[in-house]
Amino acid sequence: MLNYFMNRASVRHFSDMPVSEELLRKITLAASHAPNTGNMQAYSIVITRMADVLCDLYPAHFNQPAATGAPILATVCVDFNRIEKWCRLRDAEPGFENFQSFIAGMLDAAIFAQQFCTIAELEGLGTCYLGTTTYNPYEIADSLKLPKRVVPVLTIALGYPDTAKVENKPTERLPVEAILHDGVYYHPWEQDINAFYKEKEALPENIQFVKENNKETLAQVFTDVRYTKENNEHFSKVFANFLKFNGFLEDESEVKQ
Amino acid sequence: MLNYFMNRASVRHFSDMPVSEELLRKITLAASHAPNTGNMQAYSIVITRMADVLCDLYPAHFNQPAATGAPILATVCVDFNRIEKWCRLRDAEPGFENFQSFIAGMLDAAIFAQQFCTIAELEGLGTCYLGTTTYNPYEIADSLKLPKRVVPVLTIALGYPDTAKVENKPTERLPVEAILHDGVYYHPWEQDINAFYKEKEALPENIQFVKENNKETLAQVFTDVRYTKENNEHFSKVFANFLKFNGFLEDESEVKQ
Repeated sequence: MLNYFMNRASVRHFSDMPVSEELLRKITLAASHAPNTGNMQAYSIVITRMADVLCDLYPAHFNQPAATGAPILATVCVDFNRIEKWCRLRDAEPGFENFQSFIAGMLDAAIFAQQFCTIAELEGLGTCYLGTTTYNPYEIADSLKLPKRVVPVLTIALGYPDTAKVENKPTERLPVEAILHDGVYYHPWEQDINAFYKEKEALPENIQFVKENNKETLAQVFTDVRYTKENNEHFSKVFANFLKFNGFLEDESEVKQ
Repeated sequence: MLNYFMNRASVRHFSDMPVSEELLRKITLAASHAPNTGNMQAYSIVITRMADVLCDLYPAHFNQPAATGAPILATVCVDFNRIEKWCRLRDAEPGFENFQSFIAGMLDAAIFAQQFCTIAELEGLGTCYLGTTTYNPYEIADSLKLPKRVVPVLTIALGYPDTAKVENKPTERLPVEAILHDGVYYHPWEQDINAFYKEKEALPENIQFVKENNKETLAQVFTDVRYTKENNEHFSKVFANFLKFNGFLEDESEVKQ
């Protein structure tokens, strides 16, 4: 089993083979046994098939090929709509209109999503997260007809892998020393950082990546091209506003001491 | 394999058998192959052993037995300290001081944590998330000597299960219809909510739980006892302030349009 975890890779090219309704239900049910806060299950998963593409879903993910080429997009949402309806039908006044409830829901949604991906991959499917879900929550909510109190946080592109184009090599990771701390946080010095990133920076594909982007260092590709301050700040405003619109983040009275 | 996912349960009682350093490294390494945003791996995991209990870690989790009885507490953190140090050593100016970067890091940290738990369980360990990590981030950060830009988000109590006390029955979940939506979000009506929660409300342990808490409905246990509005709002302020302190959440200029 460890072999699967060490060698898994995301899949961005899918075959035309359809994914059955039955398999999707089986994976969802098994994934719902992942741990969650207080067993409230404050999440939902919305399945979109390529055949019934919803108006804004592709553009909301910037029409990235992993999205437009996938037979299925599964949007995982923080969902307090269901539990609040239940509370109100049972003479209980819910107190989930706040940031901490959203944080709990988001952790649970991500834990559920990862369990879903692991099970899907073990069932022979390929998966790829779209990191664009929290950039365009308004468009995704419109497209999927999400009610208030439901926030899309992760999208999984899903389908059987196109075996001709499958990545058979896992992407490199930092050495385990970089992420594992013993007792207290280990504060890395310059020589530690150099050691942690040495292998990554020396990979031919990363050297090529730096060249293609006309940059001097791999780090600059992250800061100047892929995740710029300007974009991060813009999409921070969008997502924070979406949380406010949904009652999960208050104005300054909540975020100030 | 599906059998494991369908029947897994959190473990809150542990044996004295020590967990080897080697096994922890093996699990962490394998879990680091979980997907993450742009392969930035903006997370860390800090291992605390019962033998070297850190001053505030137990009280920060309200001394709950699952924490104080576990041989190991593994605190999973959003970590932008490492990548920002790397950027600055490589002539790259990082732009991660914002909410969107934190959200990406938190999703990645949760995905990594769940992969860690799955692998640990398949290796024979028991795990239990402590849902209290985002309630007391200041105390946890002090205890683990976390630098700025590192935010604890999940804690895993970890060890070999006490076989005499192990839960051999998975906790109930909502029917898959409650969480799986086809095409667009299905807006549940009153009769749907009643159907979704019927089985849960009829379970003898849940009926007993309502009685013990002197409540009339199971929903009231959640709203009046376990997750009250007052507590949620208090801990929302604490966590939002901690994010501001770490540069992930701006004052009103960021959260207002």
